[in-house]
Amino acid sequence: MTDKAPETTGLTSKDYYFDSYAHFGIHEEMLKDEVRTTSYRNAIYLSKHLFKDKVVLDVGCGTGILSMFAASCGAKHVYGVDMSNIIDQARIIVADNNLTDRITLIKGKVEEVELPVKEVDIIISEWMGYFLLYESMLDTVLVARDRWLAKDGLIFPDKAVMHIASIEDGQYREEKIDFWDNVYGFKMTSIRDAALKEPLVDVVDPSNVNSSASAFKEIDILTVTKEDLAFTAPFRITSNRDDYVHAFIAWFDIVFSACHKPIHFSTGPAAKYTHWKQTVFYTPDAMVVEAGDVIEGSITCKPNTDNPRDLDIDISYEHEGKAGTTKESVRYKMN
Amino acid sequence: MTDKAPETTGLTSKDYYFDSYAHFGIHEEMLKDEVRTTSYRNAIYLSKHLFKDKVVLDVGCGTGILSMFAASCGAKHVYGVDMSNIIDQARIIVADNNLTDRITLIKGKVEEVELPVKEVDIIISEWMGYFLLYESMLDTVLVARDRWLAKDGLIFPDKAVMHIASIEDGQYREEKIDFWDNVYGFKMTSIRDAALKEPLVDVVDPSNVNSSASAFKEIDILTVTKEDLAFTAPFRITSNRDDYVHAFIAWFDIVFSACHKPIHFSTGPAAKYTHWKQTVFYTPDAMVVEAGDVIEGSITCKPNTDNPRDLDIDISYEHEGKAGTTKESVRYKMN
Repeated sequence: MTDKAPETTGLTSKDYYFDSYAHFGIHEEMLKDEVRTTSYRNAIYLSKHLFKDKVVLDVGCGTGILSMFAASCGAKHVYGVDMSNIIDQARIIVADNNLTDRITLIKGKVEEVELPVKEVDIIISEWMGYFLLYESMLDTVLVARDRWLAKDGLIFPDKAVMHIASIEDGQYREEKIDFWDNVYGFKMTSIRDAALKEPLVDVVDPSNVNSSASAFKEIDILTVTKEDLAFTAPFRITSNRDDYVHAFIAWFDIVFSACHKPIHFSTGPAAKYTHWKQTVFYTPDAMVVEAGDVIEGSITCKPNTDNPRDLDIDISYEHEGKAGTTKESVRYKMN
Repeated sequence: MTDKAPETTGLTSKDYYFDSYAHFGIHEEMLKDEVRTTSYRNAIYLSKHLFKDKVVLDVGCGTGILSMFAASCGAKHVYGVDMSNIIDQARIIVADNNLTDRITLIKGKVEEVELPVKEVDIIISEWMGYFLLYESMLDTVLVARDRWLAKDGLIFPDKAVMHIASIEDGQYREEKIDFWDNVYGFKMTSIRDAALKEPLVDVVDPSNVNSSASAFKEIDILTVTKEDLAFTAPFRITSNRDDYVHAFIAWFDIVFSACHKPIHFSTGPAAKYTHWKQTVFYTPDAMVVEAGDVIEGSITCKPNTDNPRDLDIDISYEHEGKAGTTKESVRYKMN
């Protein structure tokens, strides 16, 4: 690597934090997420009629994989923008694949860089974070859209839907939360409280889901504003069996609706594994539910005022059941 | 958590980098490493005769678990030192377990803090990192030893031994290294080179080990100096079957030899899982070996001059086999 990419050598762990996308490991995980990468590939490869002779912008291009997909589909030119040092690797990769004349990579923030063109026909971007919005680049995609996307331009993908449901999760809850009540004979209950308020990104077995799913937020990337991304949304789910509720889970679906036939993928518990997994919010107490019971509530999501990179997620919920009434509101913090 | 531990609230991901031990998640992983935690517990609980009425220092006390083990064994007083904000949690934990009069926690660097006593009888510390020495606190333990340990004082643990062996690992090597040669039809060979030079911390199946093990470094924590930890050591391993060598692996064993009957644990591939797993160093090319073949070489380990937190590990090796002679030297970087 030393000869080829002097800009990326000598990075320390500290650099990797401030530039957490500089290290190849995170790109390896994303590229190997087959649902993710093949959905993008299919959406682009099956849209040759849309990409042919078009000017394309890849927001957060990383290793350049989406730019290369687009260039292979006949795009007139692809601009890839990324502020991470990984773009130095992407330059080598684009050259190694003989695409230098079709792809131009620009290092910098979308808010600050200049493109050599006034507008682009298509924006492609893989911006999704855990819980869709955590550390996500959607704000950046919206800036790019408002700066450069032509009237009637397309965005790949252009729709995201967030879902919530309830789960039974007694055993894992014990391992993750109640564990702190007795650690080799000692009480660490103060840590238990911190653990409860931190959403857990993990794979949920679909058999643990014990309610209907509620789609609480739909995002149209062509029209959404930054302000729309701090929101309160109601939800209403119905228990589908007699069970206990130990947690809520959230996930998201993605749609490329500009394709001739829309391409979807889901990060839900019933779908194939993705690196986004699901996000689990343990409730302070288990609820006893019967089939047909309704849990109603609302979910509020907004950047933390002190650290906008972090996300405050408030879940308020009510349930009237055989074992009593629950009315609770919890503030979770993703950081 | 807000009420009880104001010092640890409002931490951002950035804080967690600079203070990577502040978050409970890393302590959860370490506490749940049963080999690690029960070895320490047993070493201390089976040494009540040694701890009774003694002054104990816990270097890098974290959640305070080792301090509480020692206090439960009749130590006169335990001093726990840690520079991470996790110590604010440890204070609450010590109080919740009614041990405030037996355990004093001091936030700061071992190099800078003052103890209310002139010397301590026993130092306990869990300082081991990946590959034993990566981001390890052994330097800090040595500072504590030289500042405070009484003549004839004890250290738990007091011995570490590092081992190397060779493995067959064709399939995983393909997934981790050769993957970059063809990523959805594109060449990312420049990343392959970076991937090869970064040791991989992972679980190695013992059936993949195809040589004897060579103990290349033994560390006596009572006498070792900081300078001894930058070293070159020879190794010599013998292939135990006709096979291919795709990588070297390294691991370490730990001994509490001050115990009445020494307590050991190993982080090797044949031993029970620990969170240290093993460290894998892929070679640039596979070697064809026959049972009885010898691979001789040396391993050099030293902090990176630019970033002393990082570790440069050079492995040089020679093998004369049926398919030809190999003579190679590779610099790996752990960062």
